[in-house]
Amino acid sequence: MARSTLYQQVASELRRAIYSGELGPGDQLPTEADLMQVYGVSRNTVRLALGELVNEGLVTRTPRRGTVVRDRRPLLLYPQRELAPQPSRAPREAFAYAVSQEGREPSQVIDVAIVEPPEEIATRLELADGEPVVVRRRLRFVDGQPYNTNDSYFPHAIVADSEIARPGDILRGANRVLEELGHPQVRVVDDISARMPTPTESLRLELEPGTPVMEHVRVGYDPDDLPVRVAVSVLPADKHLIRYELDRH
Amino acid sequence: MARSTLYQQVASELRRAIYSGELGPGDQLPTEADLMQVYGVSRNTVRLALGELVNEGLVTRTPRRGTVVRDRRPLLLYPQRELAPQPSRAPREAFAYAVSQEGREPSQVIDVAIVEPPEEIATRLELADGEPVVVRRRLRFVDGQPYNTNDSYFPHAIVADSEIARPGDILRGANRVLEELGHPQVRVVDDISARMPTPTESLRLELEPGTPVMEHVRVGYDPDDLPVRVAVSVLPADKHLIRYELDRH
Repeated sequence: MARSTLYQQVASELRRAIYSGELGPGDQLPTEADLMQVYGVSRNTVRLALGELVNEGLVTRTPRRGTVVRDRRPLLLYPQRELAPQPSRAPREAFAYAVSQEGREPSQVIDVAIVEPPEEIATRLELADGEPVVVRRRLRFVDGQPYNTNDSYFPHAIVADSEIARPGDILRGANRVLEELGHPQVRVVDDISARMPTPTESLRLELEPGTPVMEHVRVGYDPDDLPVRVAVSVLPADKHLIRYELDRH
Repeated sequence: MARSTLYQQVASELRRAIYSGELGPGDQLPTEADLMQVYGVSRNTVRLALGELVNEGLVTRTPRRGTVVRDRRPLLLYPQRELAPQPSRAPREAFAYAVSQEGREPSQVIDVAIVEPPEEIATRLELADGEPVVVRRRLRFVDGQPYNTNDSYFPHAIVADSEIARPGDILRGANRVLEELGHPQVRVVDDISARMPTPTESLRLELEPGTPVMEHVRVGYDPDDLPVRVAVSVLPADKHLIRYELDRH
């Protein structure tokens, strides 16, 4: 991976130009030859940098029009990063991480309630009939635009006396609180599906007609294999890309 | 995981009844009390078994109707399993693995061609302009029904003299051939998105109107970090569920 540094520097410069708005949707990037000259790098390095931007959904490349900034930049989510060890002040959550990485502004509206869970949630949390959950429902925004929803369910019996059951944001993250309660999540199962949105979702997320949503459901298990959290994200398909990076064992 | 055995046995019995058609779409499963008696297990074990079936998309549970076999059982894909070490005769591919696990019959139509790749593929494979690829396009069936498509692209320079560039199926899998050519895939990047299908896809996959598709793109890298394969799967959203299982590092 020795070659990473150089092309990633070039990619990073171009990314900044796009996120700052210096290069807007539909704008052409400089030609490969121009970029080689501006950055004093080889054609191969330029291509790797541009490839990075294509992979992130920032630009498209066609022989006819060259490299063009895309209209809609999907937000690239890395669900694995929530699990990696991180400095205690870093955002532990894939969404906030992805948005702030892009230099955009994440914000959210949180609503906390104690409810009887939907059957699917009760099953995934292995709860007996009538056992309540705490649900933290979030509508999340990027630069003020509604972007996606994330509803996290926790067994009430576990979180009743913690910040998780109280209104408002938890700066260090609900996962950290679960750790403090003796239920760190050491294993997660992620299910990804897609469907058309419900009318309520269309309204809430201000979706264009005909836009499907992806649903990302994460179940987190503690060291005793007890499910302690179910997080359901509804991700409008025109605005999100989910990425997993896997090494062969 | 000591408790796995018992509830997984019960789940396995019920799964077999569903896949064999003994229990058809819309059929109710026996009540929890009946299942406890039939299998001589606790209510908790029955619940865990039923939870497993819910998670696999085989049944739904509602307080009013009990546990009911779903109309459409999504195929549960585990993209990670393609990377795990496997006996040399096992199907190395997530789709064939998932289908045969369910006791259903996978089949496919393969078409092999040497083409100039679409720009996005060329970028992901880090190819120079005009460099050709071998594409193996597959339309895949479950029990004779068209289910999804999988198009795998390989740099022609690498695979030109191998079975990958020749028509027909490769029993031991194209990934194994890449290994033999000195390009094992040691790392992959999976991108998952969703969109409405193209008219061609709707026709080919016999989609109901209004059914979105998921797109799963896997780029495989060899030990020198060279991309050697891009596999694009188009998965009708009503028929597929993608699952990743992650341990905390």
